[in-house]
Amino acid sequence: MNHQPNTADIQFILQNVLQVQPQLQALAPYGEADADLMQQVLEEAARFVADKVAPIRRDGDEIGAHFANGTVTMPPGSKEVYADFWQNGWASLSCAPEDGGQGLPEVLNQVLYEMLSAANHGWTMAPGLLHGAYECIRHHASDELKAAYLSKVASGEWLATMCLTEAHAGSDLGLVRTKATPVANPSAADTALGAPYSLEGTKIFISGGEHDLTDNIVHLVLARLPDAPPGPKGLSLFLAPKFMPDGSRNAVVCERIEEKMGIHGSPTCVMRFDGATGWLVGQHGKGLGAMFVMMNAARLHVGLQGVGLLEAAWQMANAYAQERRQMRAPGPRPADSAGQAADLIMAHPAIRRILDTQRAWIDAGRVLAYQTALELDLSHHHPDAARRERALRWCSLVTPVLKSAFTEQAFHGGSDCLQVFGGHGYVREWGIEQVLRDARIAMIYEGTNEIQAIDLLVRKVMGDQGQALAALLGELRADVAGQGTECAPGGGEGGGMAGAGAGGSSAGTAAEVARMADALQAATTGLLARAAASPEHAYWVAGDYLRAVTLVLMAWGWARIDRANVTGDARWSNPSHALRTWVLPEFEMRLSLLAGASGR
Amino acid sequence: MNHQPNTADIQFILQNVLQVQPQLQALAPYGEADADLMQQVLEEAARFVADKVAPIRRDGDEIGAHFANGTVTMPPGSKEVYADFWQNGWASLSCAPEDGGQGLPEVLNQVLYEMLSAANHGWTMAPGLLHGAYECIRHHASDELKAAYLSKVASGEWLATMCLTEAHAGSDLGLVRTKATPVANPSAADTALGAPYSLEGTKIFISGGEHDLTDNIVHLVLARLPDAPPGPKGLSLFLAPKFMPDGSRNAVVCERIEEKMGIHGSPTCVMRFDGATGWLVGQHGKGLGAMFVMMNAARLHVGLQGVGLLEAAWQMANAYAQERRQMRAPGPRPADSAGQAADLIMAHPAIRRILDTQRAWIDAGRVLAYQTALELDLSHHHPDAARRERALRWCSLVTPVLKSAFTEQAFHGGSDCLQVFGGHGYVREWGIEQVLRDARIAMIYEGTNEIQAIDLLVRKVMGDQGQALAALLGELRADVAGQGTECAPGGGEGGGMAGAGAGGSSAGTAAEVARMADALQAATTGLLARAAASPEHAYWVAGDYLRAVTLVLMAWGWARIDRANVTGDARWSNPSHALRTWVLPEFEMRLSLLAGASGR
Repeated sequence: MNHQPNTADIQFILQNVLQVQPQLQALAPYGEADADLMQQVLEEAARFVADKVAPIRRDGDEIGAHFANGTVTMPPGSKEVYADFWQNGWASLSCAPEDGGQGLPEVLNQVLYEMLSAANHGWTMAPGLLHGAYECIRHHASDELKAAYLSKVASGEWLATMCLTEAHAGSDLGLVRTKATPVANPSAADTALGAPYSLEGTKIFISGGEHDLTDNIVHLVLARLPDAPPGPKGLSLFLAPKFMPDGSRNAVVCERIEEKMGIHGSPTCVMRFDGATGWLVGQHGKGLGAMFVMMNAARLHVGLQGVGLLEAAWQMANAYAQERRQMRAPGPRPADSAGQAADLIMAHPAIRRILDTQRAWIDAGRVLAYQTALELDLSHHHPDAARRERALRWCSLVTPVLKSAFTEQAFHGGSDCLQVFGGHGYVREWGIEQVLRDARIAMIYEGTNEIQAIDLLVRKVMGDQGQALAALLGELRADVAGQGTECAPGGGEGGGMAGAGAGGSSAGTAAEVARMADALQAATTGLLARAAASPEHAYWVAGDYLRAVTLVLMAWGWARIDRANVTGDARWSNPSHALRTWVLPEFEMRLSLLAGASGR
Repeated sequence: MNHQPNTADIQFILQNVLQVQPQLQALAPYGEADADLMQQVLEEAARFVADKVAPIRRDGDEIGAHFANGTVTMPPGSKEVYADFWQNGWASLSCAPEDGGQGLPEVLNQVLYEMLSAANHGWTMAPGLLHGAYECIRHHASDELKAAYLSKVASGEWLATMCLTEAHAGSDLGLVRTKATPVANPSAADTALGAPYSLEGTKIFISGGEHDLTDNIVHLVLARLPDAPPGPKGLSLFLAPKFMPDGSRNAVVCERIEEKMGIHGSPTCVMRFDGATGWLVGQHGKGLGAMFVMMNAARLHVGLQGVGLLEAAWQMANAYAQERRQMRAPGPRPADSAGQAADLIMAHPAIRRILDTQRAWIDAGRVLAYQTALELDLSHHHPDAARRERALRWCSLVTPVLKSAFTEQAFHGGSDCLQVFGGHGYVREWGIEQVLRDARIAMIYEGTNEIQAIDLLVRKVMGDQGQALAALLGELRADVAGQGTECAPGGGEGGGMAGAGAGGSSAGTAAEVARMADALQAATTGLLARAAASPEHAYWVAGDYLRAVTLVLMAWGWARIDRANVTGDARWSNPSHALRTWVLPEFEMRLSLLAGASGR
């Protein structure tokens, strides 16, 4: 079964729950992005995803990318679909018009990638890094480099890589050893785009390091100058193309590709830089900063991979549960079981619980991720500096939660969806085991989930003595209490739980958000107090803290959905019930872990 | 890295924690099985596993079983290792001497299969069903059938299958349609072993349905006589060999093998019975009962696959964490970090927590599984009927817990172990992603984990109004309080927490077991009271109930380990601390879910 994006669900969350439209159109670059245009773009994106990208998912997995003699052949259909993709402007959806882009909001771009990842995670890896490379070049490269590469990368005509990891330097990029030496007697080709450097070193885990999708590949390479200090402050960023401006081959060699658990449609390359020519991007010693300019967007993107993959797994499991009959379910005989020897497995509580619970995760993930994408847009374009600041605070705190909690849910909740199939779930032809294999990487790349948790608790929450977190919790409380200002998350319209619909018991859910926010606040205060005597404790419980924040945010997200569900539609009220019944009780456990003993 | 069984750990749990030796030797058939013999068998088993079975694991996965024209070629080495296996008597370890077996205790056989599964789950599938088939034939087949098949199956010279599932009948075997018709004019070959039946139907998910490991394959087939009633009571069991006694080929055809997520070394076959000749095993309409004679042992076996696979994942992750350096860990600089730019990842709390937590699961799983295997031996051979009854009660209640909780932990805790590797964990050559792919099936087969939970709560606990559970909890309480009778689990020696060692704070852990047992008892009473008004509620929360029981049993298991850890060895006291700090807090959450709202 090929994935079919559910744009009605997505639009309900964008427009009814979060009311993004007026907030986006109030921003200068997006004045023209009216509701009709948004709808049209989403529908066309969904059609492209369903018609082109989804059908090549299984070949991508089973045939995969193939390496021979330094070249990589992509699986059947990849190249044609990629040509369609960039030529139809999907790669440049949220790039600036002056760079040849469509100039649409980041929130639309993130939704596009959620759909793509759901339909075909492996294929989506190729364009997935493009926007980060675009922003990196745009903000940090010299005018010569921009003239040569920016519009090609914006359009997606050339794909790009991020060459960070080395065999001994993964989470710890400060250990990177690749050397960049100024070229002593450069050729004309070498100096075409500025003072050239010779790059020496081997990078691993380079997604799309080599392939046949595009005529050129633009590598962004983290390396160290001969006189640079050790550690992260000695790292600089370089741009090294596969083909030089004069058409000659640069000394960048793909040594092999990895055999992986999943995303076989994406070649994960070992790349050797054998004195390859590169040009500096940004300043010496500022390589990590230039690379991480798009970190929030990239991590949000990975969080949405999680949401998309879980949606894919849910769709498969839901369809199966509505066809497969096994045994009698407890309780009154369902109407559709007349004359049948067994009930639909959908009628069995264990199956219903899985499906409604995963639905609660997916929908909460969308609310949080779309809101975060909106905040990214606001952080760039809102006229009010205080509002931009607030948007950045939201992104800073919520992004690690999205990246960690929703990639974990894609794998573990995806496994629950597989379980719905019984033995069939373990067999390839049903497609769901691929979801799990593909999803597993998202818990690791773009900063492991453990690092996200430390980033959230140690760096961001404890780093300012909990001030940013307290402000965020205040926003959530005010929003559900109907006291949201026009700038509160999604508060531009509607205005709080006072206008709540029939779907959720809104007074109850608002009170729940407030109660949870208070409890999290108290737990945070406790951790801060404990840090003086036991500085290590936060590192032991960072994962629990991230889960606790996740659950508060999910309670808020579902309070927003309940408010928008004015007709009491069971489509939304059933997962809302599942959230409160099966998901939120974890919160107390996490608080107890935070307050409990440390490891040893 | 090939798996190397840790027999010292296993022996510590068998002998120091559970004191199985005197209890086994007190049973008539095992009087000769002294400590030296046990030790020798375990060491030889570990050597066979490490030297023969572990090295063919990766080829089993990457090359896998190959199907062509109705035949299956097993991956390289499988056949040779299997020949070694049965010829050296490993297949018949716990078969009766009168059938040519070694006559050793079931507990040793279960430990052997734990080691085998840890080293190579796919290969182990082949002999994994053998013992069940042996017991089935032994207890239910006619003398003619036994004469022809029992010793071949006991020795493992011929492998066997269990042909239950059909495309439309998985968890619900009552829907099985395969027909068995008495043969009207049987040939001499057909009547060689009794009145022949003609079997017509297609079975799926038949592990080892076809292969080149043995000269013959003995299929045990669930089918329905023409005049049989619908549902499970109309099912009878038949024995249909691949080759008939006269050497001719029976009409049993392998149509194809499944492409699966893992256990590629095991062919999962679609088997067509095209009027194949079969003979009745047991009575008409009693097929399910005959098939399930070994259900407790088979489910325990699957639980131990979970324990073994988690041990395999843990060993890999632990070794990696002791070699890989990334970043500085919080707290004082470790001694081994002198002159190093980064600390071992073992020193990072997030990694330590994963490793100690999984260790807590594995060790608890061993205590519970080995005790259950011992109870199986006691249930067969103890002279006192009341003790046999008590042993059966233990097996009945604890087996679904082992099957469900420890297969789930193999997958999810195995995923945590993969996470220790960062990106390397996602790459095949490190071997750990295969553990996850292989382990996933164990949550499904031999009764899905959802069915285990319903079996435990609805059938076994609520089925007798909680009496058996109350008795079990009483045993656990008495055991840790030092009031265990000579018959209490493992209570033959030592005698309670009064003799506790320095490793655990034994008074505390004993009190904790009692407190948890009381709380579980109260929760059970609550569920029983609720059942009258809300009979469906138990089906919604059966999984939570199983988790709560799991945690009580784990607390008991670790109280036993603490007692045995007389030197306070950190090998045992660190995971004990992890259990109490990170694992047991889930208990309160499960109680709150049990007492909370129902689904809808």
